[in-house]
Amino acid sequence: MQFASRLDNVETSAIRELFKLLGKPGIISFAGGFPDSAMFDVEGLKEASQKALTEEPGGALQYGATEGYEPLRTQLSSFMKTKGVDVDPSGLIVTTGSQQALDLLGKTMISPGDKVIVEGPTFLATIQCFRLYGAQLISAPIDANGVKTDELEKLIAEHKPKFVYLIPTFGNPSGAMLSLERRKKVLELAVKYQTLIVEDDPYGDLYFGEAPPPSIMSLSKDVPGSRELLAHCGSLSKVLSPGLRIGWMIAPPALLAKATMCKQFSDAHTSTFSQATAAQYLKSGRMPATLAHVREVYGQRAQAMGAALKRELGDAVSFTQPNGGLFFWARLTGANGKLADANELAKRAIEKLVAFVPGAPFFAEKPDVATLRLSFATADVAKIEEGVKRLGQAL
Amino acid sequence: MQFASRLDNVETSAIRELFKLLGKPGIISFAGGFPDSAMFDVEGLKEASQKALTEEPGGALQYGATEGYEPLRTQLSSFMKTKGVDVDPSGLIVTTGSQQALDLLGKTMISPGDKVIVEGPTFLATIQCFRLYGAQLISAPIDANGVKTDELEKLIAEHKPKFVYLIPTFGNPSGAMLSLERRKKVLELAVKYQTLIVEDDPYGDLYFGEAPPPSIMSLSKDVPGSRELLAHCGSLSKVLSPGLRIGWMIAPPALLAKATMCKQFSDAHTSTFSQATAAQYLKSGRMPATLAHVREVYGQRAQAMGAALKRELGDAVSFTQPNGGLFFWARLTGANGKLADANELAKRAIEKLVAFVPGAPFFAEKPDVATLRLSFATADVAKIEEGVKRLGQAL
Repeated sequence: MQFASRLDNVETSAIRELFKLLGKPGIISFAGGFPDSAMFDVEGLKEASQKALTEEPGGALQYGATEGYEPLRTQLSSFMKTKGVDVDPSGLIVTTGSQQALDLLGKTMISPGDKVIVEGPTFLATIQCFRLYGAQLISAPIDANGVKTDELEKLIAEHKPKFVYLIPTFGNPSGAMLSLERRKKVLELAVKYQTLIVEDDPYGDLYFGEAPPPSIMSLSKDVPGSRELLAHCGSLSKVLSPGLRIGWMIAPPALLAKATMCKQFSDAHTSTFSQATAAQYLKSGRMPATLAHVREVYGQRAQAMGAALKRELGDAVSFTQPNGGLFFWARLTGANGKLADANELAKRAIEKLVAFVPGAPFFAEKPDVATLRLSFATADVAKIEEGVKRLGQAL
Repeated sequence: MQFASRLDNVETSAIRELFKLLGKPGIISFAGGFPDSAMFDVEGLKEASQKALTEEPGGALQYGATEGYEPLRTQLSSFMKTKGVDVDPSGLIVTTGSQQALDLLGKTMISPGDKVIVEGPTFLATIQCFRLYGAQLISAPIDANGVKTDELEKLIAEHKPKFVYLIPTFGNPSGAMLSLERRKKVLELAVKYQTLIVEDDPYGDLYFGEAPPPSIMSLSKDVPGSRELLAHCGSLSKVLSPGLRIGWMIAPPALLAKATMCKQFSDAHTSTFSQATAAQYLKSGRMPATLAHVREVYGQRAQAMGAALKRELGDAVSFTQPNGGLFFWARLTGANGKLADANELAKRAIEKLVAFVPGAPFFAEKPDVATLRLSFATADVAKIEEGVKRLGQAL
């Protein structure tokens, strides 16, 4: 069977192979990119789904508009308002998880050979998703304050990309936080070079101390002309439930219309059952307590992991303590002749019954093999301490 | 904003414009392609969703395998067995509605310029979906017994298509039923020309009298080598609920693996909440009664529409009485100087407060403007009679 040529651009990820090993009994896994199931508000979602099926069974079970279920769009518009973004319900579409927003951006915007700038490192499934549409990806370097905007400007000027894709708040895998100053700079670059900026924001609500700077979308009101050059992707996956597959995209009307057409032929619409359930949940007013709960628990775990890494690995790793999100992004320093290759460490770690993800696959260009990603989301504090101890032994 | 070049191949459909007019008060619509909301087993789905959230809340709300939620794959494997198809749970993947199965086939198989043979007429969203991936579509003519296999063979030999896409059972829009003899012929053509055949089967369970011939997939056991050249798409949308967005695809392992990879970057997985609910529903044993109910009600409506069309439109239309599915496919004969242009009739019909879909957009090539599609699914018998009367007046 001869498959489409676009598949030549994408390999099955090395990470998938690693995940097959996670079933080993007794393993402590920092490898996942998912929230802790124990944190799901099951009772709230039970009530919400029953309400959806009782109050408007037709709406929850029938075909729906490709753009999204109207009551959910209204709730999401209000939710975005609490985060400083003024958007009409018609200014967003509901997507089947924010993964689909990325897919629709690829389908709508990328012709084979088009250039797209991403952070180095960035979300693995973004790299693969855009490459399937034939994108040539350019990596913009980051530090703990997110993408280096001076380097980004040079890359935009040189490559004239179709768009720039950023995860500015607690980025995956980097955990980095784009500073307020750089956010404004990104908006100025959008206008100066008339370049579309895609802000992917699945983690923005998962902060542990003070709130992060406003989203790029929220700041666009201060930079004339920038809002027309911005797309923003949101998601309920990390804060409520990934299984609902509820994401959304805010974008300029012309882009939103084309993305909606593409979505019509991708999956017609997102499950109205999921959408009606999410709408009832948001309407129920339980979201603020749910957010407070996940922030507290993940905050404790991040604290524990940071302390354990310092204690057990010392100067053999360098990292910035994340103030939100799900991940530590660390780098093996090679200090005192210790291992500096995260792939090798991953193999040894599995033998010691602890797992993490090597960082190299998260780079679209020039992989840094000394990097690794550790999730603190799904193991409790005791497991985190034990797991990091094992990691120290593996090293 | 410059969109991807693939969008140049697709127009916003004329039908979408028509659908905007359906909000007119008092209109009787035969235009939709959806089941009747009044037929949804709301109680059964309420129970199923509660059970899903009670018994395995983690599974129903967490990220899941791209291939699908294991208990649902198991249920679907059993469901297919009742229909004569022997497939292991691992031999199918769950898709976000069968629309996504089409999208994944396009993404996985079609390189720009590749040829794909479809029926003339065929499902509108298939045409657009495949064109977005750059397919050049070839139309194979049909009659009341489905695609004409002698013509199909000539087209396969001439065009060497990437695959042949068929809706053999109560096709949309044609309502046609591929005869047993032709089903076997299709399988022989697959082997003879080593051509992939895609069987889209959302309507096969919606029969009114005796069961239709076995699916092409089911018959493949009689034609050595054919199963490796077959993909089969199924759906719960027409028989249970479209809002769940539960479809599935059975295909050879290599194709299934590539489609799964593409799905990973399309939407990660189908809503586990929907999947767990559907699994519980199938497990509950309510499906046979639900099927019996929809068959009976739609059967009565089809009966009523056929009689009304004969009574009210006489020899101004020709059609074959459908024995299943949701649609009448009719042709304006122009007899007695009556109108033979369905686009024009659609406009006049809206004025008389009745709506249907002109047939021309359903043709990938050489549209027949005398054709029209009438759905009998969502109006009750009285409305059907009144609506067809209005149609007669419009004509």
